[in-house]
Amino acid sequence: MRADKKPVMNEMRKAIPASVIRRFPKYLAHVQAVREVGEVWVSSQALALALGLTSSTVRQDLSHLDYSGVSKRGYKVEELEKILVKVLGLEVSRNMVIVGAGNIGRALALHGDFHRKGFTIRGIFDSDPSLQGSRVGGLTVQSMDALKGAVAGEKIDIGVIAVPASAAQDVADALAKAGVKGLLNLAGTHVRAGEGVAVVDVRLVASLQELAYAIKMFEGE
Amino acid sequence: MRADKKPVMNEMRKAIPASVIRRFPKYLAHVQAVREVGEVWVSSQALALALGLTSSTVRQDLSHLDYSGVSKRGYKVEELEKILVKVLGLEVSRNMVIVGAGNIGRALALHGDFHRKGFTIRGIFDSDPSLQGSRVGGLTVQSMDALKGAVAGEKIDIGVIAVPASAAQDVADALAKAGVKGLLNLAGTHVRAGEGVAVVDVRLVASLQELAYAIKMFEGE
Repeated sequence: MRADKKPVMNEMRKAIPASVIRRFPKYLAHVQAVREVGEVWVSSQALALALGLTSSTVRQDLSHLDYSGVSKRGYKVEELEKILVKVLGLEVSRNMVIVGAGNIGRALALHGDFHRKGFTIRGIFDSDPSLQGSRVGGLTVQSMDALKGAVAGEKIDIGVIAVPASAAQDVADALAKAGVKGLLNLAGTHVRAGEGVAVVDVRLVASLQELAYAIKMFEGE
Repeated sequence: MRADKKPVMNEMRKAIPASVIRRFPKYLAHVQAVREVGEVWVSSQALALALGLTSSTVRQDLSHLDYSGVSKRGYKVEELEKILVKVLGLEVSRNMVIVGAGNIGRALALHGDFHRKGFTIRGIFDSDPSLQGSRVGGLTVQSMDALKGAVAGEKIDIGVIAVPASAAQDVADALAKAGVKGLLNLAGTHVRAGEGVAVVDVRLVASLQELAYAIKMFEGE
């Protein structure tokens, strides 16, 4: 227990609320889709409908950006895309490594979407000697001993935690020590990182539990 | 565009706010871990530290439950677990199917955590004939024609969307038509479902973009 370490997300909330930041990638995906079919303007109503939000949430969310829409026309697609990319820090592409070469880790390593969106997987690591040396797409599974050198040598910003919950904190510590700035945690358990290392959780079981709750509500229990 | 269909999540917010519901599975995971090591009480401070929240958020979140803590001791672990399980609707185990037998779909089908947590995968489907008939763990990839019969015959509540973004809405429609009550959407795009069908998104690229934002903040841009 490292009681002296404050959760890192608090520092982000001072800038734009974390709940709003979490929606920006959804706006960005829609704005890019709309631009690809040649639209010039997008209204808060259209954004609301496409993203399953209310128009007033959309207007409030976008008021955090240094850009305001035009009355009756909405937002200029190209400008909104540019500013979302800038605010999210996506002009820079990021290198990442995956720790854990099990089913989930391998699937992520083979997932083409990441590279297309500016996130390039440079390595995959596992502590299990029977997995080391095996191929995953264009990569070879390496031992954990090789992690530190790879992170330093290949300018890795992001470490993906794709190990069982029991190993997650150790992997988080190893990645932070190796010098990554952010952790994407798929281990299904909370991990703590030191100062200056951000953590975002992808919680598969928790998402299913949230869905179970929604189903229960529909069933009228 | 189905402008007549309201986003389903609004109906849930009337009960317990969706943002709070999304945290309950995290509380539950911690409470179960704490119970397994024999703890009887858990304080809001301990929960806050373990989950990266403030104590006041914890107290506010848990005030939505029909159970209040005891001054100076906190919450009784066993009771808190029971009520979280009940509120989330997790006494009932749920059957699910996966649509999409690519890397992500196969990885999910092989992921042992789901079954342990009461979510059992009963089938995997893909429209690609070259994948149909191949084995994924104990399952055989079936054609989309078999979906409807499987959902009805095996009492499937949840459909997992593990296809590319371009096919996601069609798969969502097919699953809803087949009779599932909830969709777990990993396609990285928003899908709309009809009345009475809940949707929870697992957004891998969006999570990376959120992380990129956090890293940018730390870098002091």
